[in-house]
Formats: sequence, C-alpha cells, structure tokens
Amino acid sequence: MFLYGQAEGVPVRTPQQERSRVTQARLLESTVECLVEHGWSGTTTTVVAARAGVSRGAQLHHYPTKSELVMAAVEHLAERRAAEIRQEAAVLPAGPQRLDRVVDMLAAAFTGPLFVAALEVWVAARTDPDLRAALVPLEARVGREMHRLAVDLLGADERAPGVREAVQATLDLLRGLGVANLLSDDTHRRQALLAAWKKQLAALPGLAGGALANL
Amino acid sequence: MFLYGQAEGVPVRTPQQERSRVTQARLLESTVECLVEHGWSGTTTTVVAARAGVSRGAQLHHYPTKSELVMAAVEHLAERRAAEIRQEAAVLPAGPQRLDRVVDMLAAAFTGPLFVAALEVWVAARTDPDLRAALVPLEARVGREMHRLAVDLLGADERAPGVREAVQATLDLLRGLGVANLLSDDTHRRQALLAAWKKQLAALPGLAGGALANL
Repeated sequence: MFLYGQAEGVPVRTPQQERSRVTQARLLESTVECLVEHGWSGTTTTVVAARAGVSRGAQLHHYPTKSELVMAAVEHLAERRAAEIRQEAAVLPAGPQRLDRVVDMLAAAFTGPLFVAALEVWVAARTDPDLRAALVPLEARVGREMHRLAVDLLGADERAPGVREAVQATLDLLRGLGVANLLSDDTHRRQALLAAWKKQLAALPGLAGGALANL
Repeated sequence: MFLYGQAEGVPVRTPQQERSRVTQARLLESTVECLVEHGWSGTTTTVVAARAGVSRGAQLHHYPTKSELVMAAVEHLAERRAAEIRQEAAVLPAGPQRLDRVVDMLAAAFTGPLFVAALEVWVAARTDPDLRAALVPLEARVGREMHRLAVDLLGADERAPGVREAVQATLDLLRGLGVANLLSDDTHRRQALLAAWKKQLAALPGLAGGALANL
C-alpha cells in the first residue's frame, strides 16, 4: 500500500488503490451497522454488499467469506475508534476532570455500536469452531490495544501497586456495564456507579489525576 | 400447585402433577444445555424436546413457543442456582475467608453454563422485538434477585456509604469477566484480578468480613 512513494507522510495511492480502500471501508462500516441492526444471523455478505452499495463481485474480491468480513470489520473499526479516543483525549486539559472524562470516553466505547457488533461476533464464535479459532488471536490483540489505550489515557504507572489490576478491573467493569445496557437503557445506573468508581480510581496512587498527581 | 394439602411443608402432588413437574424440569434443563452447546440459532423446540426425551406434544403443552421455553429456562435455573449458592454460603464459616469464598461463588455463577445460556438469549433478544419486550422484565427480576443474593452473602449494609455501589460494581465486574471468558479460558487473569478486588471489598466498612467486621 505504501509502495508508490510518500509526500509529507501521506501515502500516495493509485486511483485503483484509492477506490479499493474506499470500497473496503464502506464494506466494513456496513458490516458493523448490519450486525447492530440485524444481529449475527441476519448479517450476510449479500446484505452487507447491498447496504454498502458495493457489487457482489467487489465484496467477494475483498472479503470472500462472512467470517473474513466480520473479523476485518471488528479489527478495523476498533483501531479507528481507539485512534478517535486518543485524539479526543489529547486535547483534554490536565487536572482532576481528566480522569472523569477519560472513564466516560471508555464507557462510551463499551456501550456504542462497535461493542454491540463485536459482542454479536464473540457470542456467535462461541459455538462456531472455525470462527472461534480465527477470533481468539484477534480478541487478544484488541484486548491488549484496549488495555494500552486505557493505561495511556489514565496516565497509569503500572509499576505502582494495584494499578495494573485497577486498569484491568475498569475495562472488565465497563464490559459488564456494556452488556447490562444491551436490552434497556442503563445510563442512569451506570453513571451513578461510575461516579463511585472514578472516586476509587482518583484515590489510587499511580494514576495521573489520581492521588499521586494531586500531591 | 399447592391445592392438594401439605405435609410437613412439602406440597403433595398428584402423580399427574408430579409427572408434569419432572417433564418441565427436563425441558428447561435441556434448553440450557442446548443453548450452551448450539447457541441461540441452533436451539429449537424440536431439538430440546428430543434431548429431554419428552414428546413433542408434551413440549407444546408446557411451552408452546421457543420464546416461552427459553425464558422459563433462564428464570427457573437462575432461581435454582441462587438457591444452591445460598445453601452453599449458609455453611461457610464467618471470618475473613468468607468474603473470599463468596466472591468466588458469585464469579462461578458468571462463568457457568447458565450465564452462557442467558447471554445467548439476551443477545438474540436485542434484535428480536417480541423476545426483547418479554425479556426486559425478566432481566430486571433476575438482576434484582442477584443483587439481593450478593447483599445477603456479603453481609452488606447498604446504608453504609459506597456499599450499594460496591455490590453493584462487583456484579457488573463479574459480568464483564464472564464475557471475557467466553472464547478462551480466562481463569488465571480473573483470579489475579479478583484477588485485588477482594482486598478492596475487605477494606470497605459495611461488609461482613470487611473493615467494620474486623474492628
């Protein structure tokens, strides 16, 4: 993809490559929308291609199977969402409000469409051995990236006692809250619970905005 | 069901009622096994009846639709599991080990077959308006019962500051850990994380086995 030289750090693509990139992005976004709207069993490559306005031939060329399509979609959109969160977090002012906002941003990621789509795929993979085998390494990769994102955003010093566990617990808690939000709007309860959680985190030495940073 | 008199607190059933009860229990257990093994879409009333060794007619008589069957299964087995956990907890000795064991028992509930089966139903309900409408009140009921169970087992005084939130966070965390365990065995990470979590709980005044009880 980067074979054709670069100008000011931006890869120059041939028109054909650019069309491919746009087609792929449209297919991956349609896949997530389709998973959110119709669930795993209602998501077919035909429905996704139609929704994306992409020919069946082009869809088959880029992602021959449903499994390849959904895995690429989850990975691509997880990366994009992580990049968006990093950008958003980069402009947050330092101070006690920062931890508050960062937890809210992470919580939003676990209640948004990408989480719902990923959960559809995860649950389907549980009883589909081929999909499961393909998904386990992707799950590990996305999990590590999410952990790294949380560590960076929280300014967490993982060498400080209890900090690594607190970051992990935050992500596991948010995943649980994401599931609790599946069938009915759990925002009210979630916000109250996260208010208490943020206080716990803020009291923890080893987090930026936490006890150490406030000294 | 209790119309025919009681002897020593045990309801006396007619042979017909007893057969019905056994048939129902077998159908509900088969339903959960089927959801665990084949997932939502692989679970049909026909497959469940065959697995339970129950005639199609009897299955249709007790639970005419898949929706009724899975909802009854989740509710019945959640109640039975809660009763089993209460029994198990009743014989736990008091002291600091108690909190440790109680958290492990709750964690086991969120990684066991019932959790997996319920998650299949919850995720399917997200994109099935009829099932969703029927499930939302059941979810609320099961959620309240789980909270009550955790409060009782942890000996939690919910009037003490932060205790209600800590109980809720424990259950949400365990739900998140349950999902993290879906595709691969997450026991090692979960145990390390829960060890830290138990310490946090133990430091909280207002929990039996917590700071207040240790004074």
